This record gives sequence, structure tokens and C-alpha cells, in this order.
Amino acid sequence: MTTMQHMKVAMQSYVDGLNRGDAEAVIALFAEDAVIEDPVGTTPKRGEEIRKWFHKAVAMKAQLVLATPIRGSHGNAAAMAFRVTTEWEGLRTSIRSLDVCIFNEAGRIARLEGYWGPDDVENY
Amino acid sequence: MTTMQHMKVAMQSYVDGLNRGDAEAVIALFAEDAVIEDPVGTTPKRGEEIRKWFHKAVAMKAQLVLATPIRGSHGNAAAMAFRVTTEWEGLRTSIRSLDVCIFNEAGRIARLEGYWGPDDVENY
Repeated sequence: MTTMQHMKVAMQSYVDGLNRGDAEAVIALFAEDAVIEDPVGTTPKRGEEIRKWFHKAVAMKAQLVLATPIRGSHGNAAAMAFRVTTEWEGLRTSIRSLDVCIFNEAGRIARLEGYWGPDDVENY
Repeated sequence: MTTMQHMKVAMQSYVDGLNRGDAEAVIALFAEDAVIEDPVGTTPKRGEEIRKWFHKAVAMKAQLVLATPIRGSHGNAAAMAFRVTTEWEGLRTSIRSLDVCIFNEAGRIARLEGYWGPDDVENY
């Protein structure tokens, strides 16, 4: 049984792990067969693609700030709204994003859905 | 084709419709065969249950305040984090909630998922 407290702590660990540039700590929150659809509407990432994606996020200096406290549910899911800024080849980007995470029985993230569209992105 | 702009306007109309107590305007945003799972992890509502649910929300004086701008996606979905307060038989309740809406081709909400758990609720 994955508790709501566990899910919220895992999502905070996702934020904190990225903010300190620890891609492996973030990857460890996910199940081996996890699926990431971020942004929703694009091809889902799995396995090695997920590893590369988080390492690239760290290389781009991704920094996440929660917009409001993480929400739970009455099931095996939780959600959070945040802003993520990145820096790559001199371009700084800020995205208003929102993630839904679905957890497996072992308490790891089985599915992550990232909600953000083109008009949620600002370059500056 | 349901545009992102349409989806964000529809979700803002959902907030505004509830805030002015107009249950029918909110119900009109949904497809006839829409499914609402709110909170996630409970039995989904359909048809007449959805109508009753929104009329009850209005009777409970539901008032929604967005916590951060509505997010789009690269598909047919959008999401928003908000706080909703209700008042019923002298009890005032405030819930930190977050809704994901999936739209159909006609631009109506086909599925709504509401993320909030017991520890996202405050009675005062």
C-alpha cells in the first residue's frame, strides 16, 4: 500500500533531486517500467530515454519551484503545479507546468504526465 | 480540433460558472457521456449524477480560486490547481484541489479528474 504521505514525499524528492542536480536520485523514484508523457500529447518515454531525459534536465540546470502545495488523491496518484526554469546555450526558459504521478504498489512512480503547452513557455 | 485556447477558456468558464452559482452553465461544458472522477480513486460519476453533483456544489456555495495559471498540453488536455471553499450546514471547508480535463473533438469536457486527498481538506 502506497500512502498519500509517501506519494507527496516522493514528489517533493523529485523537485529537490532536480534542484540539486541529482539525476540518479530522481530516476530512482521511478519504476523500471515507468512511462513518462511530458508534455502530454507527445510520444511517451521509457527506460533509457527516461534516464537520458533527466540527465539532460540536469545539464540544462532545471530548477523547479512549486506554485502551490502538492495535492494527493483518494487513490494511487498525486499531482503538483510548478514552474521550471532551464538554461541552455545562453537561452533561459521558464515553463508553467503541472505533473500528475501514478504510483505502483512498491511506491515508485509508474506513470508521470506533464501538462504544459506552447503558451505556457517563456524565453527570456 | 479543440485548440489550447478553447480548453483554457472552458476551464476558466468552469471556475467562473461555479463562482456565480450557475450549475447549468458548468454542466453545458461537459459532453453528454462525460465521466468525472473527483476525487481520483472514488467511483466515477456520469450523466444525472454529474448534474446533481454540480447543483449540490452550487447549493454548498462552492467558490474556486486558481492557485496559478491554467496549464495546457500538446494534446487534448489541460489542467489547473485551485482552492475551493464550500459552506454547508454551518461548516466551512477549504480544499486544495487540482483538476485535469480531457476534451473531445467537439471541445467539450469528456473526462475530469480531481486530485485532492483527505489531508488537502481544512474545516474552519
